[in-house]
Amino acid sequence: MMTQTETAQGTPAVRRPEHPGYQDRKDAFARRLRRIEGQVKGIARMIDQDTYCIDVLTQVSAVNRALQAVALGLLDEHMSHCVVDAARSGGPEAEARLQEVHDAMARLLRT
Amino acid sequence: MMTQTETAQGTPAVRRPEHPGYQDRKDAFARRLRRIEGQVKGIARMIDQDTYCIDVLTQVSAVNRALQAVALGLLDEHMSHCVVDAARSGGPEAEARLQEVHDAMARLLRT
Amino acid sequence: MMTQTETAQGTPAVRRPEHPGYQDRKDAFARRLRRIEGQVKGIARMIDQDTYCIDVLTQVSAVNRALQAVALGLLDEHMSHCVVDAARSGGPEAEARLQEVHDAMARLLRT
Amino acid sequence: MMTQTETAQGTPAVRRPEHPGYQDRKDAFARRLRRIEGQVKGIARMIDQDTYCIDVLTQVSAVNRALQAVALGLLDEHMSHCVVDAARSGGPEAEARLQEVHDAMARLLRT
Repeated sequence: MMTQTETAQGTPAVRRPEHPGYQDRKDAFARRLRRIEGQVKGIARMIDQDTYCIDVLTQVSAVNRALQAVALGLLDEHMSHCVVDAARSGGPEAEARLQEVHDAMARLLRT
Repeated sequence: MMTQTETAQGTPAVRRPEHPGYQDRKDAFARRLRRIEGQVKGIARMIDQDTYCIDVLTQVSAVNRALQAVALGLLDEHMSHCVVDAARSGGPEAEARLQEVHDAMARLLRT
Repeated sequence: MMTQTETAQGTPAVRRPEHPGYQDRKDAFARRLRRIEGQVKGIARMIDQDTYCIDVLTQVSAVNRALQAVALGLLDEHMSHCVVDAARSGGPEAEARLQEVHDAMARLLRT
Repeated sequence: MMTQTETAQGTPAVRRPEHPGYQDRKDAFARRLRRIEGQVKGIARMIDQDTYCIDVLTQVSAVNRALQAVALGLLDEHMSHCVVDAARSGGPEAEARLQEVHDAMARLLRT
C-alpha cells in the first residue's frame, strides 16, 4: 500500500466522490450529533454544580463512546459507497480512497 | 486491591469528598467543554452541508482527543485532591477512592 | 449497511478469499510479530527484576502501539485486496467483507 | 497540578519507591505475560499458515485487551502502594508520583 509520503509527493490530486457516503442517512447522523451536543452541555452543567469528579468522568466516557459509534457509522457508509464505487470504477481513485481510510483509522485508534 | 464485586457486596457506602477535586479549576474545565460543544455543533453542520466523510471523521477524532484531554485533567485533579486527601486521612475512604479511579480508567481505556 | 444480527440470521455463508490479503508481505508481518514477542518477553523480565511500575507501564504502552500498527497494516492489506476484489466481482462477498471490516474496526477501537 | 515541563525544569530528582507496587503479585503478572507471549507467538503462526486477515485481527485485538488489563492491574498496584505511601509521607514524592501516573495514563490512552 502507498505510504502517506508518497501520496503527498507523487500523486496528483484525485477526484473526490460527488456525494458523501452517508448521504442517505444524513438525518440519522444529524440526530445523533444533536444528542451528543446535549450530552456535552450536560457535562458542563455537572461541573457548574460541583458534581463529583468520578460521575463527570463517567459521562465523558459515555460521550466518547457515542462519538466512536458515529465515527464507525461514518466509516461504514464511506466504505460501502465511496470505497466500493472507486474500486468498481478502477483508476487512481481506489488507491486514494484506501489511503484516506487508513489515515482516518490511524487517527481514530490514536485517540 | 478490592474488586468491584466486593465493593458492591461488602463495603458500606463511604463518604465522598465534600468538594470535587477540580473545584479550583472549574472555570477552565467549563470553558473547554463549551469549546467542545461548539466543535460537536460544527460536525453537525458539516453533515448538513454534505462535507466529505473523511473530513467529518477528522473532526470527530479531534473532539475525541479534546474529550480525552478533559478526562485526563479531571483524573489529575481527582488524584491530587480526593485520592491524596483520602490516603492521608486513612480509613475506608482511601480504598473506595482507588476503586473508583480503577473503574474510571477502565471505562476511559475501553472507549 | 447490514447489521450483525441480520448477517448471523439471514445471510448464508459467503466464500472467503482464497489467499489472505497480506500474502505478499507475510515475511514483514512475521518479523514484526517476532519483535513484539521479544518485547513481551522483555516486560516479563522487567517484572522478575522488580523494575519500577511506571517503567513497566511505558513498555506495555510501546507493545500496544506496535500491535496497533500491525493491526492497521493488516487492515490495509485486507482492504486493498480482499475488499477491493470483492467489490469488483460484485455479489454477496462485497457486503460480507464490509461487515467483517466493520466488526474488526469495532473490536480494535474498543480495546 | 504540576505540568510536565515544570517537572523537567524545576524539580530535583525525587526518590523512587524501594520496591515496585506490584511486588506482592509478581507471580500473577509474570504468568499473565507468559500467556500473552504465547498469544503473540500464536499470531505469528497464524500468518505463517495464511490464516484469513480478519481472524488474525481478532487475535490482535484479544492481545491488546489482555495487555490493557495488565496495564490497569499495574496502575492499581502502583496507586495502592507507591502513590498512597508517597501521599502519606508527604514531601515532593507525592507530586512526582502523581505526575508519573498522569504521564502513564496519557500514554495508555493514546495507544
